[in-house]
Amino acid sequence: MALVSEISQPLATERVSLEAAAGRVLREPVCAPEDQPPFDRSAVDGFAIRLDDSSSQFSVVDEIRAGDWKPRELQHGETIRISTGGALPGDNLQVVMKEDVQADGDTIRIAQRGKSRNIRFRGEDARAGQVLVESGTTLQPGTLALLASVGQAKPLVTRIPRVLHLATGNEIVAPEQTPQHGQIRDSNSIFVRAFLQPWHLEPEQQRLPEDEAVARAKLQTSNSKLPTADLLLTSGGASVGEHDFTRRLLEHFGFEILASKTSLRPGKPLIVARRGNAIAFGLPGNPLAHFVCLNLFVRVALERFSGVSATPVFQQGTLAANLEAGRNARETFWPARFKLKNGRPELTPLRWSSSGDLTSLALANALIRVAPGAADLTVGAPVEFVPTIF
Amino acid sequence: MALVSEISQPLATERVSLEAAAGRVLREPVCAPEDQPPFDRSAVDGFAIRLDDSSSQFSVVDEIRAGDWKPRELQHGETIRISTGGALPGDNLQVVMKEDVQADGDTIRIAQRGKSRNIRFRGEDARAGQVLVESGTTLQPGTLALLASVGQAKPLVTRIPRVLHLATGNEIVAPEQTPQHGQIRDSNSIFVRAFLQPWHLEPEQQRLPEDEAVARAKLQTSNSKLPTADLLLTSGGASVGEHDFTRRLLEHFGFEILASKTSLRPGKPLIVARRGNAIAFGLPGNPLAHFVCLNLFVRVALERFSGVSATPVFQQGTLAANLEAGRNARETFWPARFKLKNGRPELTPLRWSSSGDLTSLALANALIRVAPGAADLTVGAPVEFVPTIF
Repeated sequence: MALVSEISQPLATERVSLEAAAGRVLREPVCAPEDQPPFDRSAVDGFAIRLDDSSSQFSVVDEIRAGDWKPRELQHGETIRISTGGALPGDNLQVVMKEDVQADGDTIRIAQRGKSRNIRFRGEDARAGQVLVESGTTLQPGTLALLASVGQAKPLVTRIPRVLHLATGNEIVAPEQTPQHGQIRDSNSIFVRAFLQPWHLEPEQQRLPEDEAVARAKLQTSNSKLPTADLLLTSGGASVGEHDFTRRLLEHFGFEILASKTSLRPGKPLIVARRGNAIAFGLPGNPLAHFVCLNLFVRVALERFSGVSATPVFQQGTLAANLEAGRNARETFWPARFKLKNGRPELTPLRWSSSGDLTSLALANALIRVAPGAADLTVGAPVEFVPTIF
Repeated sequence: MALVSEISQPLATERVSLEAAAGRVLREPVCAPEDQPPFDRSAVDGFAIRLDDSSSQFSVVDEIRAGDWKPRELQHGETIRISTGGALPGDNLQVVMKEDVQADGDTIRIAQRGKSRNIRFRGEDARAGQVLVESGTTLQPGTLALLASVGQAKPLVTRIPRVLHLATGNEIVAPEQTPQHGQIRDSNSIFVRAFLQPWHLEPEQQRLPEDEAVARAKLQTSNSKLPTADLLLTSGGASVGEHDFTRRLLEHFGFEILASKTSLRPGKPLIVARRGNAIAFGLPGNPLAHFVCLNLFVRVALERFSGVSATPVFQQGTLAANLEAGRNARETFWPARFKLKNGRPELTPLRWSSSGDLTSLALANALIRVAPGAADLTVGAPVEFVPTIF
């Protein structure tokens, strides 16, 4: 993961509408262009009077609704009916809630006069020039609302990466096809697509036979996304044997292979390659290795691309059931179901009969990290885990 | 919330592609149409031999790659080179990993023969007819991959609700406009839009002046989404005073008002209304009340609409700082920043200077529930909280 983090750089930026900015990463600090709120506003529906006016009866001389601007010096014994959000007509005023007033035509009597002035004062939330949102922040509903309120209607955000995904293999057919004996349906393509969705990424996807000449020809057509992709993902064809198809394909298209295996289980035969600022991952074809490599390695690349402020990868929890780790020599990531119980993350390891088992993956929302050589872990043991993209 | 849950019904279903199904809710159980995997597959790159063959030297009589189907009875002393995922040619075989073999032309010698057969057996993951994914499951990457692998390329999911959002108020202008004195920029519209995004909802949005005749006329045009909306949200105009605009507008368009206030702070003047199976929420215009009402009430309606299996609303955590609750008589939801620390959710209450303060909301990812009349809470105190849509 350190290698991936090192070779991935934040992508360029663009200005987009607030609607298009949801979920994306801000790349400049946003400051308050004016005081927030920009004027003294009534916090309630009520009646504005002078602070120094101790009259018990007032005549209503005007009405101010939200959106109005009616500056005026109030006299003793005068009041203005004012709505929530309405701009106060001057300084040194108080708003008495309408519930605390008895009205009789244009005359009111104050039944109860509290201490609160019921005013949101100019600059109370933020002063002009103050940084409101830091660069590197993911724009969620609250931040977008804040940007809208200060008129930042075209925030500067990271552009969306261009992603090409190639599912390779002679044995795969489309999900809607009936496989012949020896064939299986391609489940990796939809997995990759759904995994990328939270980043607002729509990958270009292609299925390729494991035949170098055919694959090269398909990728060399003029409408191929290969030359401009920021991220190239391949599924399958990355095994250690002589069918080492992915490696040769990547090299043919100018990628430099930086790593061709990891120390992890599953996901050992992962290829990491680079061409300029573009990064390629040759993912082992089996579903669990996909799950692990996407959630650990590809996720790091996407976070780096986005320019988001760093987030911790691992979290702490406890086991809700025994985990037969079996003293494997490799660091292992075990699929698990995570939930908060009495405020603590609890992890139930899922059946791992093979790396191809999709029934467990369908339930998994976390990966438990098992140290190399770890013996069997018992219920209640503290573990580190990665919440997976869900 | 009980009222909202009671009046909201799961929407109708539709069949969509796997690509369009990501994040949506499955509405029928999906069973395995055939054994999973459908045939015995090699789990490694290696050489298939008879289980009962104790020869030390074998001649390679064929090669099986993934996607091939070459049934054959192996003889003693014979082996077949087989790729990961390749279909075994018959029963009672074992695959020896290629790393454990010395090859010399078409002859191999086994250096090490482990116990594992290195085969993923037919039906090992699931038997034909077995329920693989339950109705009511949200389709995340792993479930979609499982559906793809069993050929369920058009899953039955809940249709997407039609949502109309009306931002009302004479004081609001679009975020890209410069407000006149007394006016503010509309931040609720983008808040609502971003809040709905995780449900794949794109609301129709309109800004309306608080003028009943104008509003009615705008909503009565032939292209208005009002008649077909499943969910109608209005922002502002819900205060208790005489400007009770939302209530009259909803009643004019045939909605029955079921509730017009809650016992919560903030969010007291929330209107809940119904017309057939459609539900309307009249949201108080201030941002924090929006935040609370959307995350508590509107969320319940959307979850009920979607048909998802029930999820708990509240979780447990501890305070990372003091919270000056101030013995308020109403149940209060306090904006907070939540993070996992040493495996425990920790909540830092955010400054709540007023319900209109967007600077705190921009940081909030949780709401702390403060019981009516609760005194000040100190750091380390256990609290209940709601993670907000982020």
